[in-house]
Amino acid sequence: MAADSWSTTTSEVYRQIEQALAATSQFAVATIVDVEGTAYRRPGAKMVIESDGTSHGGITAGCLYEPLQEAANEVLESGSSTVVTYDLTSDDTWGLGLGCNGVIDVLIEPTDDSWQQMVDARTNRKACSLVTAIESNDPSIPVGARAVISEQGSGTNDRRIRERTVLPDSVIADIETEARTYATEGSTDCISVSTETGEIVLVIDGIEPSQKLVVFGGQPDVRPVVRFAAQVGLEVTVVTGRGGRADDEMFPAADRVLATHPTNLSNAGIDERTFVLIMSHNFVDDRLALEAALGTEAPYIGLMGPRKRFEQLQSDLENEGVELSKRDRERIATPVGLNLGSDAPVEIALSVVSEIIAVSNDRNGGRLVDQAGPIHDRKSVMSQ
Amino acid sequence: MAADSWSTTTSEVYRQIEQALAATSQFAVATIVDVEGTAYRRPGAKMVIESDGTSHGGITAGCLYEPLQEAANEVLESGSSTVVTYDLTSDDTWGLGLGCNGVIDVLIEPTDDSWQQMVDARTNRKACSLVTAIESNDPSIPVGARAVISEQGSGTNDRRIRERTVLPDSVIADIETEARTYATEGSTDCISVSTETGEIVLVIDGIEPSQKLVVFGGQPDVRPVVRFAAQVGLEVTVVTGRGGRADDEMFPAADRVLATHPTNLSNAGIDERTFVLIMSHNFVDDRLALEAALGTEAPYIGLMGPRKRFEQLQSDLENEGVELSKRDRERIATPVGLNLGSDAPVEIALSVVSEIIAVSNDRNGGRLVDQAGPIHDRKSVMSQ
Repeated sequence: MAADSWSTTTSEVYRQIEQALAATSQFAVATIVDVEGTAYRRPGAKMVIESDGTSHGGITAGCLYEPLQEAANEVLESGSSTVVTYDLTSDDTWGLGLGCNGVIDVLIEPTDDSWQQMVDARTNRKACSLVTAIESNDPSIPVGARAVISEQGSGTNDRRIRERTVLPDSVIADIETEARTYATEGSTDCISVSTETGEIVLVIDGIEPSQKLVVFGGQPDVRPVVRFAAQVGLEVTVVTGRGGRADDEMFPAADRVLATHPTNLSNAGIDERTFVLIMSHNFVDDRLALEAALGTEAPYIGLMGPRKRFEQLQSDLENEGVELSKRDRERIATPVGLNLGSDAPVEIALSVVSEIIAVSNDRNGGRLVDQAGPIHDRKSVMSQ
Repeated sequence: MAADSWSTTTSEVYRQIEQALAATSQFAVATIVDVEGTAYRRPGAKMVIESDGTSHGGITAGCLYEPLQEAANEVLESGSSTVVTYDLTSDDTWGLGLGCNGVIDVLIEPTDDSWQQMVDARTNRKACSLVTAIESNDPSIPVGARAVISEQGSGTNDRRIRERTVLPDSVIADIETEARTYATEGSTDCISVSTETGEIVLVIDGIEPSQKLVVFGGQPDVRPVVRFAAQVGLEVTVVTGRGGRADDEMFPAADRVLATHPTNLSNAGIDERTFVLIMSHNFVDDRLALEAALGTEAPYIGLMGPRKRFEQLQSDLENEGVELSKRDRERIATPVGLNLGSDAPVEIALSVVSEIIAVSNDRNGGRLVDQAGPIHDRKSVMSQ
């Protein structure tokens, strides 16, 4: 296991898959496809396992590592996908083991060319669903048979898949609508489908492109924000305002540093999966950057500074004829961050990145202990 | 400015002061003592400035760096403390500058022997107040005259201070009660005192020892927790349960790694400023660790796992005659963490460390944008 496998972000797991395809080296990818009871992670969680035992990402609390490695080695040898079920409900396990109490189904696959379309979609910042047979009594459809359904586009198969059986178009037609929805939501679930000669169970695994963060500002308090954001797998662009330099050394954890006028903020490639954070500490530049950000599809625009300062910004915008819509008010977060009560720059950075993760998952950031109901809002009930 | 000065934690600032004393090298320490209007940081925020321009910590949004450096150099040359006032309320500053709109008073001092008692207190995990004259028309009491008041102990001066004027015992008697309270709360404020021959203004700067985190567990998902906790300045001890190894390589960001039976958890040095996180994923070990943690003064006991698992733990404890008090229920956080909605280990780690910072500041972690009123609950109204 790679020493810091458990600090691996979801983005990094996909980067590993991409590298495996580019290098035509063979990794195995283990994906949780179904959970009954409680488990450590939700369906869709992935782990890359190399034949030498190196792994990236974690799908259980460490316990299943050896059986997963064995299964991965078999998959790498045979080139065929398999589904392994781990039953963690025994009294012994509950008592002395994992703190999980569920049955999890794990799909283990080689990084063959059936992944390429997903990698391409992510590169183009499009979502897609990997649709894969995980059970089958139809002799023409083995476990691992796959189709990739894009968020948009036709429902016919991409014929680039040569290293794996592709699902027949009749099956694709049955699940196409669900697959598109799952792609957009990034959700994962199983579905049974009748074929002409049998029954199959498919996992529909919606995969979104990476989330991005564009930070407008060049002061040193941007640094810890960039560091935390990169650590949780956001792709980070720092945009320094007028007079700023595109200084990679200042922001070593950033993927990109641009120097541009705040009115050009949208040139940083802001789309509907890009969070924007405005913290230049310069009133006029912040106003121009805010105006530019409002013209993008950014779902979140964090603005550093006190409420009163935002009121002044808003009033200046109104004087220029820019009225904020209801949706604009919803996506502007100011004062920015979760209420952690600290004024130290590194802790403000923590509170801002935590807020971004919360918003990206449609959560409020409050303490779980204060909130009733299950922690995860999807079908399966999870452990944590 | 040190490249990553703004990621410097409060603990690191004190460590720098400690090192300056040990090495008898001279740094200057800049402390915000008073704020009118809005400013970037609260009174008590500190920055260490070396004569070569290296600095640790940030007290403004980057803008005052040059005047602070100049003032620090004068202090280092003269060996005398000074107070500098920065007025950031001009229209020009508001318009084009900082996004702050206040007047801040900064005390700049050399790292002389008047800091030793504070360093010793922190080493012994005791709080104290640095009491320092910041204005004076009493000729016997220059700006910088100091006394150090411990959380406990007598109100007489520690006569070890030789490099600075000590405040007279009559002045100490006047502010002793406040100084003890401020020490315990870690708060900072100014107070006017009449002396026999004049009027002085003192800053009372309460300084707490570092906050600690003890994590019980040895699985790889402990790693990102340790990393984030260290990055925000918590002193981290990892306690691996039975069968675990004290493996420093596994947890490079930890200050200490111990292998011990969970019933010995309290040997990890848990006091009233130590947060405990239990995440062994082993039901029996977690129960034993929880029981041990409940016997300590820990203000927070985070327990990884679903609500149902805690109910089972609680029922097992009750069967052994251990009833949870109201205070116990308040300090146990389970499910642990803030509601960020993610199941990736690195994001769970972020949510747990964010919760610890929120709890340490008596906050709920919810989004600031959803909460009315000023962000900071102290006297001064701050920017962020």
